[in-house]
Amino acid sequence: MPRNAFYAQSGGVTAVINASAQGVLDAARRHSDRMGTVYAGRNGIIGALLEDLIDTSQESDAAIAGLRHTPGGAFGSCRFKLKGFDTNLAEYERLIEVFKAHDIGYFFYNGGGDSADTCLKVSQLGAKLGYPIQAIHVPKTMDNDLPLTDCCPGFGSVAKYVAVSIREAGFDVASMAKTSTKVFILEVLGRHAGWTAAAGGLATEAPGQAPHVILFPEIAFDEAGFLGAVDAAVKRYGSCAIVASEGLRLPSGQFLSESGATDAFGHAQLGGLAPLLARLVSDKLRYKYHYAIADYLMRAGRHIASKVDVEQSYAVGRSAVELALEGASGVMVTIERKSDAPYVWTTGSAPLEKVANVERKMPRDFITEDGFHITERCRRYLAPLIQGEDYPPYRNGLPQYVVLKNAAVPRKVNKPFELRK
Amino acid sequence: MPRNAFYAQSGGVTAVINASAQGVLDAARRHSDRMGTVYAGRNGIIGALLEDLIDTSQESDAAIAGLRHTPGGAFGSCRFKLKGFDTNLAEYERLIEVFKAHDIGYFFYNGGGDSADTCLKVSQLGAKLGYPIQAIHVPKTMDNDLPLTDCCPGFGSVAKYVAVSIREAGFDVASMAKTSTKVFILEVLGRHAGWTAAAGGLATEAPGQAPHVILFPEIAFDEAGFLGAVDAAVKRYGSCAIVASEGLRLPSGQFLSESGATDAFGHAQLGGLAPLLARLVSDKLRYKYHYAIADYLMRAGRHIASKVDVEQSYAVGRSAVELALEGASGVMVTIERKSDAPYVWTTGSAPLEKVANVERKMPRDFITEDGFHITERCRRYLAPLIQGEDYPPYRNGLPQYVVLKNAAVPRKVNKPFELRK
Repeated sequence: MPRNAFYAQSGGVTAVINASAQGVLDAARRHSDRMGTVYAGRNGIIGALLEDLIDTSQESDAAIAGLRHTPGGAFGSCRFKLKGFDTNLAEYERLIEVFKAHDIGYFFYNGGGDSADTCLKVSQLGAKLGYPIQAIHVPKTMDNDLPLTDCCPGFGSVAKYVAVSIREAGFDVASMAKTSTKVFILEVLGRHAGWTAAAGGLATEAPGQAPHVILFPEIAFDEAGFLGAVDAAVKRYGSCAIVASEGLRLPSGQFLSESGATDAFGHAQLGGLAPLLARLVSDKLRYKYHYAIADYLMRAGRHIASKVDVEQSYAVGRSAVELALEGASGVMVTIERKSDAPYVWTTGSAPLEKVANVERKMPRDFITEDGFHITERCRRYLAPLIQGEDYPPYRNGLPQYVVLKNAAVPRKVNKPFELRK
Repeated sequence: MPRNAFYAQSGGVTAVINASAQGVLDAARRHSDRMGTVYAGRNGIIGALLEDLIDTSQESDAAIAGLRHTPGGAFGSCRFKLKGFDTNLAEYERLIEVFKAHDIGYFFYNGGGDSADTCLKVSQLGAKLGYPIQAIHVPKTMDNDLPLTDCCPGFGSVAKYVAVSIREAGFDVASMAKTSTKVFILEVLGRHAGWTAAAGGLATEAPGQAPHVILFPEIAFDEAGFLGAVDAAVKRYGSCAIVASEGLRLPSGQFLSESGATDAFGHAQLGGLAPLLARLVSDKLRYKYHYAIADYLMRAGRHIASKVDVEQSYAVGRSAVELALEGASGVMVTIERKSDAPYVWTTGSAPLEKVANVERKMPRDFITEDGFHITERCRRYLAPLIQGEDYPPYRNGLPQYVVLKNAAVPRKVNKPFELRK
């Protein structure tokens, strides 16, 4: 009897993380002679700790196929990081207890940097605690900040969402500018690295096209420079469309969104970055503004996913299973770029020791000298990642996303386990 | 020689107002024996007042065809309402001077309620000031608040955007709820009527599906009721997805978004409605939240336009020309619903006296008794309006929107005219 597998989703979900789940499940089913049932963790690693496992063999082929076009995490995700072996041994002993009870010999963890750390620790269960298991990390993060991979599955679709949205809003504000709104700000998620904001820059295919200004976390906010760039765009093109990363910082390192004074109730200023920038534009330049905050819409927007991203997300799931069957452990599946144009890529792998807790920032030469847009070099890197559309099926005008049965696996350990807060 | 036509776009633009422009231009070209050149006003009626006219005959058929899938206002829009004949006679005399110089006998104005008023006044130029002109209003408003038409071109696409977005975000927050975000709020444009918020309700096709709570401007905000509904959804379904209209009001009639105290700088509270609701959820229920503010993205989102809406937008433009050629004036083109399912519609017309400055609110029986969702009656009304997808063409992963030449018509009056502020 082949050993069973555990698969779980971790961290912030994306529009395409379920395509990776589909890749894992498809490949495991294809190799059922060598890999048993895939048990999914309900809500990530927590599902293993609580022995709350989902029997994916009860899902139809159609349901598995539907994962490819369904956003969010079909099995539930979590924000929960395993501590070190020395500080939380009980968690590892519990994992082993549950894995042993369900004969789990393969561990696939689908997440970002923090999750890579969890996966690394699980890969060490054999050496440290004598429980043999192969652990493979399936990369996923809209932040695109994992090292040693050309890009991160989940990012391409966010990039496409941001580029499409700022292009569209740019057309809108340009029409309104004569008598009304002249400045539009789109605030995007991405606290530590500017990849998602940079992606907006792809919409500028000719001079004057939106976005006119991009604000990166990597470039300390310079009020005068920003206002000058906005004013120049309005004077030259009639309007100014801005993409601003939520992670924008002051020269002191403080997040701009947290720099406002407290309000009358003593609360920190509400509303994030966009309204602060908007007020600045209004107070100093006297331009009428509008702003949008994309938040979850950008990472859940499966309706405008990148086809390349969907294909890569599927591929990293499938490759994880294949790597495991070849005997690998303690690695992350990677995307390797063979050429920019045409974009040719393949999957590879990298050791988790070199991945976990390492954040890849934007190189400085991806940002123009003035700090307000992307360079040609950046464009060459980003452009392939948003290629192609991969529309979900629609019924009644709405995308038809699947909801799995998520049937619980009968408990075998059946002992309570208390999660630390 | 047939008389020429004036066409202009007014008020907040939409993802499909250019499809109406295409309808007007196509029909005028088809009837070039009876209608001369269509001069577009640059930035709405302002283009007429400033004699800033665009020669649409210089645009290729391909460019005109491209208007169908291009968001924003291709000729520029304006927020500018003609005053009464008695208070601003100079404006009307100027219009006549410009129209006479360019032999304009047809006036097509593409906008919402305020614009209908402007169109009505132009239709009276003959009776009041002796200049014969036929004025037809081409309806456009994402707010869906024009009377005497089944729906307003521009609304169906916003409705689809909101329904798709809250469905997608609902999948996201449901995945995160175990250890992180439990409540998601999507703030939507629509200051006076709840149509755009109601549209989100279409995403709830089965109990428990997002959105769980909708906040309408028509229902005075009840804090305890709101918190109860949110808490119930979280307890029952694990998470709560909310669509909130920016026009939400307190029982006093004050906008909730303006109810916050001023901040330390004496400014009114920044950030609009969503952060206020979010803080309430956090303070009172202790649930982690996220929120998005759709703003222009929802009305510019041509990539997810409703096919029905695109078709209706085109049809009202075409019908306007046909009505004019039949001798009509002082009317708005309307959409008439013949049946709900299958959805059958045709165009008609309504007198502008009954349209201008009348706002259609949501009927109370379109909102559930508890005030937090839509009724079946509302669903039957809304459902047809989001049917069908009408994707723009893509290149390099981005939608290809057209930018017209917008060549200026040589001035004939060539006298300055000062716009009142």
